[in-house]
Amino acid sequence: MLHQERVGKVYRELAENGMDCLLVSDPSAINYLVGKKLNPGERMMVLLVLAKEERTVFLLSRLYPQSEDLGCPIIYFDDVDDYVGLLAEQIPESAVKIGVDKEWQAKFLLALMERLPGRQFVNGSPVLDGIRQIKNAEEQRLMIEASRLNDLAMERLIPLAKAGFSEQQLSDELLKIYLDLGADGFSFVPICCYGANAADPHHENDASFGKPGDSVILDIGCKKDGYCSDMTRTVFLGSVSEEQRKVYEIVKEANLRAIAAVKPGVRFCDIDAAARDYIASQGYGEYFVHRTGHNIGQDVHEYGDVSSANQNPVKPGMCFSIEPGIYLTGNFGVRIEDLVLVTEDGCRVLNAYSKDLTVVE
Amino acid sequence: MLHQERVGKVYRELAENGMDCLLVSDPSAINYLVGKKLNPGERMMVLLVLAKEERTVFLLSRLYPQSEDLGCPIIYFDDVDDYVGLLAEQIPESAVKIGVDKEWQAKFLLALMERLPGRQFVNGSPVLDGIRQIKNAEEQRLMIEASRLNDLAMERLIPLAKAGFSEQQLSDELLKIYLDLGADGFSFVPICCYGANAADPHHENDASFGKPGDSVILDIGCKKDGYCSDMTRTVFLGSVSEEQRKVYEIVKEANLRAIAAVKPGVRFCDIDAAARDYIASQGYGEYFVHRTGHNIGQDVHEYGDVSSANQNPVKPGMCFSIEPGIYLTGNFGVRIEDLVLVTEDGCRVLNAYSKDLTVVE
Repeated sequence: MLHQERVGKVYRELAENGMDCLLVSDPSAINYLVGKKLNPGERMMVLLVLAKEERTVFLLSRLYPQSEDLGCPIIYFDDVDDYVGLLAEQIPESAVKIGVDKEWQAKFLLALMERLPGRQFVNGSPVLDGIRQIKNAEEQRLMIEASRLNDLAMERLIPLAKAGFSEQQLSDELLKIYLDLGADGFSFVPICCYGANAADPHHENDASFGKPGDSVILDIGCKKDGYCSDMTRTVFLGSVSEEQRKVYEIVKEANLRAIAAVKPGVRFCDIDAAARDYIASQGYGEYFVHRTGHNIGQDVHEYGDVSSANQNPVKPGMCFSIEPGIYLTGNFGVRIEDLVLVTEDGCRVLNAYSKDLTVVE
Repeated sequence: MLHQERVGKVYRELAENGMDCLLVSDPSAINYLVGKKLNPGERMMVLLVLAKEERTVFLLSRLYPQSEDLGCPIIYFDDVDDYVGLLAEQIPESAVKIGVDKEWQAKFLLALMERLPGRQFVNGSPVLDGIRQIKNAEEQRLMIEASRLNDLAMERLIPLAKAGFSEQQLSDELLKIYLDLGADGFSFVPICCYGANAADPHHENDASFGKPGDSVILDIGCKKDGYCSDMTRTVFLGSVSEEQRKVYEIVKEANLRAIAAVKPGVRFCDIDAAARDYIASQGYGEYFVHRTGHNIGQDVHEYGDVSSANQNPVKPGMCFSIEPGIYLTGNFGVRIEDLVLVTEDGCRVLNAYSKDLTVVE
């Protein structure tokens, strides 16, 4: 059912940003507005939000008939219909600046541009994404629950690294763990990697096994009731070298410093700097090769990030990751990640799993 | 490593279609050309194929460093770089007609259009997708293997419907079955539905349980080594009514007639008609509400479909589904689906699981 309050905000912010309408196509974004998650795959799906008219209409393949009232008219189409034409008909001639979903597929956008020459098409997602960044009480509850399950999963996963599972086997087992815990599945393909593989921040799991002295990065997340968790822990197999211990403690301190910096009004870039500057001061600046974090909610990566380029202030209700890392190519890597939820005077850390240096024997 | 033969075909077909270049962004499409599956999520990834120059260049986030030679130069960028600008610089001024991936996100396309005013942007995917439709021997082997695993999974899944699992429980168990069988996971979220839910061709699994007399639609598929399976069987719980039996036999005959129609040179629409006309002749035409099938490969829905709108002829090496169905709203539904692989003189059916009417007691 259409969330009137959320859609009302979109009407207002479109007008403020000089856009006449917004074509929402991303399944999570549509779910956020109408409370219905549909995944029509390669078929067109557009929730058309008309700012001036304060009216919303949903264009949907007839293969997804809705028995319940969604609170807005639905225009159904068949595969063989001219659905882009149907959409174009719904956009009034007075609409000159048309916001489109950042994720909308080129095949639809190019076809619509051909139908509506002379209009201005812009990426309109920042309007809706800015609203989605602020989680309400129910969304916060779901974020907390997803991370609670993730903590439990981490506790069951780490012993398997010790027990000699390959990276791919860890990933396979983790999925079973999530399902057993009542989660819906992965929020992303987990990164489970040993030794030098852990020095590649986006290594893809392979058949590698761990060996004594390896660092093990476990970057994992599940989905529960539509909301995502995302956490990373790094443990060591059998022993830990001087350098590994030093790097681990630097990353942990960077994680803690960034978390300590989170409160309303502080800019994302300042939170990034809290982690980055500390790592740089310890001589490892060039080995922290990614941003400190990303916003999260229904999607594991939502609009907004904790990076040097983002000068926006954080606000209560925002949820994002804090995940500094140090990657020594060909040798080992360490990353420690928690989700935080911004409160009125600071933040709540959603992950409780220990960050103490751990050697699994 | 860049598949020279495949890229060579793209160069030629771009030229034939008057396009100067193609921006490939879909992970499966890039994998098809360079043999590397990368999923950079919200980050830009473009394999730029320049037709006249017969040159290919890959733009990729620095978070995905490639240690192996991909056979084409890689331009890496950071999150804070102007990556759309980097891409624009790679497109020669002489390129006036620019083909873009049908899946490319609007945020990138709109930004590039702003950088390159006066150029013509078109959906260029049909060029590459047409080439991908024809599976080579190795791809055919992988399609056969994925469907073999799917047959085995169906055999283990049907007893669970009998044993009283809910729709969502069937889906959860199926994932475990696939992992046990050595598959990589789902190729799509399965549709497991009982009774009246089975009369909705895209019903989403819920907490419903089956009851005696229900039809049970099980539309399932796994991925194995990057290739997809997709099969549907319909069984009955405890008993089958006269009408259910009649509808089942009509759908089965429609499935068999469409399969019998498949051979090189026959048009997709004629295969669709073979199923559709038979169902209509039996008085159920209005209840067969979707196309007869879709092409499949690395993605569960690839370019091309078995529909009344597709007048292209089928060719050896094409792989698609044959999945007629009859849906009696509020009552029950039946769908029977196999994958077929077009051979020199007909087709090979990739699913061996029985289509005989089955009542599970």
